[in-house]
Amino acid sequence: MRISARNQINGTVVELTKGATTSHVRVDIGNGTIMTSSITNEAVDDLRIKKGAKVTVVVKASDVMIAVD
Amino acid sequence: MRISARNQINGTVVELTKGATTSHVRVDIGNGTIMTSSITNEAVDDLRIKKGAKVTVVVKASDVMIAVD
Amino acid sequence: MRISARNQINGTVVELTKGATTSHVRVDIGNGTIMTSSITNEAVDDLRIKKGAKVTVVVKASDVMIAVD
Amino acid sequence: MRISARNQINGTVVELTKGATTSHVRVDIGNGTIMTSSITNEAVDDLRIKKGAKVTVVVKASDVMIAVD
Amino acid sequence: MRISARNQINGTVVELTKGATTSHVRVDIGNGTIMTSSITNEAVDDLRIKKGAKVTVVVKASDVMIAVD
Amino acid sequence: MRISARNQINGTVVELTKGATTSHVRVDIGNGTIMTSSITNEAVDDLRIKKGAKVTVVVKASDVMIAVD
Repeated sequence: MRISARNQINGTVVELTKGATTSHVRVDIGNGTIMTSSITNEAVDDLRIKKGAKVTVVVKASDVMIAVD
Repeated sequence: MRISARNQINGTVVELTKGATTSHVRVDIGNGTIMTSSITNEAVDDLRIKKGAKVTVVVKASDVMIAVD
Repeated sequence: MRISARNQINGTVVELTKGATTSHVRVDIGNGTIMTSSITNEAVDDLRIKKGAKVTVVVKASDVMIAVD
Repeated sequence: MRISARNQINGTVVELTKGATTSHVRVDIGNGTIMTSSITNEAVDDLRIKKGAKVTVVVKASDVMIAVD
Repeated sequence: MRISARNQINGTVVELTKGATTSHVRVDIGNGTIMTSSITNEAVDDLRIKKGAKVTVVVKASDVMIAVD
Repeated sequence: MRISARNQINGTVVELTKGATTSHVRVDIGNGTIMTSSITNEAVDDLRIKKGAKVTVVVKASDVMIAVD
């Protein structure tokens, strides 16, 4: 499957925190950068996401903001 | 200003495409990774975003999806 | 690729309208239901989306609102 | 009330899971398709959403991605 | 129709800018505060949004970020 | 830091509810209007958000919908 979302970055899961219905997944995308994702517990189970897993971080262009100093 | 959005990555604008009301901004965040952002033309003008500018890419955790092969 | 987004519905592109930087894609998901998607022109070109194409509509659970009468 | 969000699909709630602050609502939109929504517990209480309720699923066009095989 | 989105604020349209596929709508919500919305041209036509129109601004709780100095 | 998100409204936190991974923050933006935000617990701790804190509510234009009666 290929998807319209313009940002797709490979990384490795370094931390997984499960809440009541929502999990937080932290992914090392290299170069010392960690991205944090908030997804459903159901997705974590379905995709068998766990610490050490190779994953792709996916973000739509319209969800990326730009800040300047 | 500090913001609740969990993902804040420094980079350099490498391409700026202006549409009728919406611009696309491509940012090199290092390690060979380019992120694409879709923001209003008004924001581009207000923040004086242009090719070569040092910027921070900002994404909420709930806008970050995870994919696996 | 499998993705964390919980909503993935098969359909057929019935209309494609290209703007300056953003395209609108209308997808028939069956049962008389049409879904409208707003994505970048770049994604349309990259995925070769056109009228008649078989596609999958993908939506995160946190982007689905519920309304009642 | 009529809203700018382009996707409004009628359905029936088939499952409701309440978390600490966030609920997951599964809605049958017909044709064998189930959509999953993640909303606040407060909205669930306010709109009296429960299993069997007739609801409308609402999604903005910019939150609808397109994938191809 | 009542919707799960937690933020619903009444206001008056003070400016409407139409692009190729996307419009920007500026709404005065009182107290000197203007909110800016980016929606499809199709929604603008369908809801007959124009300068001076009484409207309700609607935002999901998960789309509201918090910043501090 | 200045950000591309077009909506930035000053207010005061009037209520903070922490869930397992997600918090709900209610902010009085004046004129009797309360906005509700759903952010990560991590952001609440990092920004030291608490009842009575002066904050800025930040929303992207593409996350603002318009409704009419």
